[in-house]
Amino acid sequence: MDYIYLSDLFSNVIELKGKDIKLKGWIKNHRKQKEFGFIYFSDGTCFKQLQLVYDKELKNFEEIQKIKIGSAIEVIGELIESQGGGQEYELKVKELKLHGDCTDDYPIQPKQHSMEFLREQSYLRLRTNTFQAVFRIRSVASMAIHEFFQSRGFIYAHTPIFTASDCEGAGEMFRVTTQDLNKIVKTGKVENEKEYFGKPVGLTVSGQFEGEAFAQAFSKIYTFGPTFRADPSHTPLHIAEFWQIEPEVAFCDLEGIMDISEDFMKFIIKYTLDRCPDEFKFLDKFVENGLIEKLIKVISNKFVRATYKECIEILQKADIKFQFKPEYGEDLAKEHERYITDYFKCPVFITYWPQKVKKCFYMKQMDDGTVANADLEMPGIGETYGMSQREDDFDKLDKYITELGMDKSEYIWYMNLRKYGTTTHSGFGMGFERLIMYMTGMTNIRDVIAFPRTPGNCLY
Amino acid sequence: MDYIYLSDLFSNVIELKGKDIKLKGWIKNHRKQKEFGFIYFSDGTCFKQLQLVYDKELKNFEEIQKIKIGSAIEVIGELIESQGGGQEYELKVKELKLHGDCTDDYPIQPKQHSMEFLREQSYLRLRTNTFQAVFRIRSVASMAIHEFFQSRGFIYAHTPIFTASDCEGAGEMFRVTTQDLNKIVKTGKVENEKEYFGKPVGLTVSGQFEGEAFAQAFSKIYTFGPTFRADPSHTPLHIAEFWQIEPEVAFCDLEGIMDISEDFMKFIIKYTLDRCPDEFKFLDKFVENGLIEKLIKVISNKFVRATYKECIEILQKADIKFQFKPEYGEDLAKEHERYITDYFKCPVFITYWPQKVKKCFYMKQMDDGTVANADLEMPGIGETYGMSQREDDFDKLDKYITELGMDKSEYIWYMNLRKYGTTTHSGFGMGFERLIMYMTGMTNIRDVIAFPRTPGNCLY
Repeated sequence: MDYIYLSDLFSNVIELKGKDIKLKGWIKNHRKQKEFGFIYFSDGTCFKQLQLVYDKELKNFEEIQKIKIGSAIEVIGELIESQGGGQEYELKVKELKLHGDCTDDYPIQPKQHSMEFLREQSYLRLRTNTFQAVFRIRSVASMAIHEFFQSRGFIYAHTPIFTASDCEGAGEMFRVTTQDLNKIVKTGKVENEKEYFGKPVGLTVSGQFEGEAFAQAFSKIYTFGPTFRADPSHTPLHIAEFWQIEPEVAFCDLEGIMDISEDFMKFIIKYTLDRCPDEFKFLDKFVENGLIEKLIKVISNKFVRATYKECIEILQKADIKFQFKPEYGEDLAKEHERYITDYFKCPVFITYWPQKVKKCFYMKQMDDGTVANADLEMPGIGETYGMSQREDDFDKLDKYITELGMDKSEYIWYMNLRKYGTTTHSGFGMGFERLIMYMTGMTNIRDVIAFPRTPGNCLY
Repeated sequence: MDYIYLSDLFSNVIELKGKDIKLKGWIKNHRKQKEFGFIYFSDGTCFKQLQLVYDKELKNFEEIQKIKIGSAIEVIGELIESQGGGQEYELKVKELKLHGDCTDDYPIQPKQHSMEFLREQSYLRLRTNTFQAVFRIRSVASMAIHEFFQSRGFIYAHTPIFTASDCEGAGEMFRVTTQDLNKIVKTGKVENEKEYFGKPVGLTVSGQFEGEAFAQAFSKIYTFGPTFRADPSHTPLHIAEFWQIEPEVAFCDLEGIMDISEDFMKFIIKYTLDRCPDEFKFLDKFVENGLIEKLIKVISNKFVRATYKECIEILQKADIKFQFKPEYGEDLAKEHERYITDYFKCPVFITYWPQKVKKCFYMKQMDDGTVANADLEMPGIGETYGMSQREDDFDKLDKYITELGMDKSEYIWYMNLRKYGTTTHSGFGMGFERLIMYMTGMTNIRDVIAFPRTPGNCLY
């Protein structure tokens, strides 16, 4: 008899009612009574679990009663309307056998575990309700990203992880080496020419520059892959390895990339809400009250666009005493961001920041000392990600790179993109984990990536 | 006037015929005559190019004649049926202006460039016909991968890039460090405890193990992300950074994973053939004659399954003198693989190899000294990728890990998956670039990944 997945069972309950069904999965909970037993069963293919009811009629009743939580089982039974409360359907067991046993030291028990404890069991925490919800949403949101871009004709660009740029500066860059560090101690010399690549390289912090090369060939492209920062900050928002989404669009100005950005956010949220109702209900109840309402608000309202200058004026007129005085030419503090999103009561693109605040050499320089960029501020969390029109003028780029004291030789190819058929072009860079935090209500970035890498932590 | 993309133009020619249209893109070729000019125009959104025809009536005729190949332009014109041969439609130009100039040293000219030359211009080669075809196919095939798995309920798992396993052995693993190598020379000591992670880590060679942890929680999962090997081989098949697809499926045996594997290959090929007809026609003509026929054969035939033992017998009976004598217990040589696919005239899963040939500790051990694995051999290229049922018995795994002299402490978590509700489970690991080579006919792996990383080469 073929087995079916729980996701298929729940989407076909009407047809399957009264029929015998075979399932394979794991025991999440097991309540035993003298004549009966109840098993909460999941195969991880959907958020819903199924209650299995077995009784003394089964010839292996006593063996079944010994099966421990966490064990893998195979079960055949009839799908019936549930006698008890709490669920619509249950399985009246006809055969149940152990597939894979679980030892007594199994750390995941049907009780509340702390997030800290679960982080130390990251290979097992995927089996808990919270992480089942978070990682199904993460997977569906990933698909939403591909759907969004591919249906609009964007090319998926796999930009490189190894990078030759900025690998000597290395402030926030991880360095890759094939030299034996102990050998360096022994010989007393660094032999970069013996490196795999013949020179030092690092791990990319962004695929933007290569993405721009793609956009100058295909017009519309996106990246979606891992990027790295050796940021030593111990905060719930920082992590060494994270996934980024970085579209680049030729013949597109700042207004254009804000349009794409807004459509993108709304699409991802709606797509995921539609496909994970049980997961969002659970998170709304146990992780962030009001989560669903918050997300629906985002998809139903037009985002506001306000210049940095306008925002400074709003802040300066505000009837509130800020810890940091808002001043033109200074960065916005968290309290300022919060005030702005409260003021507009919706997501806000803050546009055209002073160049000296942003100091990003690749942002398009305007005549008034600002750059053609925008940061998207979301109510409740503040800045989520940035976007900009890219500097398309070779000479301006050249001059600013010199001014910032950067090693120009590394950027010649990037600058050349401005010599060979340059275009008005723009892009954004979004940290995927930040988006998933926002969508799930999880407050620590370590809990939205399966195997988080943070200072001092690299498990498995 | 809003501009449209060339891909939208070509899918709506009937409606657009006779209408004025605005386009933005690049000049691929420019033929000038006294009274006329012809521009081959592309915006990279589809493989087809459009011919723009302009004449002396335009007031900036002389300026237009000076516009160089590679330049970005904006053009308005009427879509008309083509007067000349070679194309169905062309644009009769009414306005044409330069958007971004191109300097005379532009390396990509409308002539045949060698692959070697183009590799040195990897940020520009994306603009050539061949790479437009290859990278559009790569993008569409990526989408096919997500479609295939997501529509079957698989969870997309982002497995980590930084890994703590096997980072001391480091045979083929890149090591990551935040130590300053020059400081090691100065102080004369390696301070692993000062590393970002507090210990040495490496770049993953595979997401399989973490994928197994995911599968034991969600039943069906897949990875699709970059992996790394510091393999110093200078061959057209080896590369340091490549993307892998690694599904893992709980409650699935070797037969099951072969079924998925076969469905997967056929789905990806069909999906991509359907969506990139122009690209495949081009590659069939200029890169591999018979490419389309080869691919259609793959999707229309059932793959054969033959045991390693059967294959050895076929090879031993063969009426041919091999350079290497086929013998039970030895690996198959390229010539053997070729004979087997010629013999069956279709893709062949070679199954149940002797454990001592494969030496993979995670493959399910059978009673006869074989393992429950399969290599898929494709006509013309031989072994493409492998799959196996995973060893689900804690004690057997433990014993073999000891026998192979591996550092057991690194694998405790992986072994524990066999203690906590173990399942019959299987997976495969496919190198994405190898698949794209097979699908495009490209013979060097450096030409199917945009920015290839090989020994001595890390451009940008």
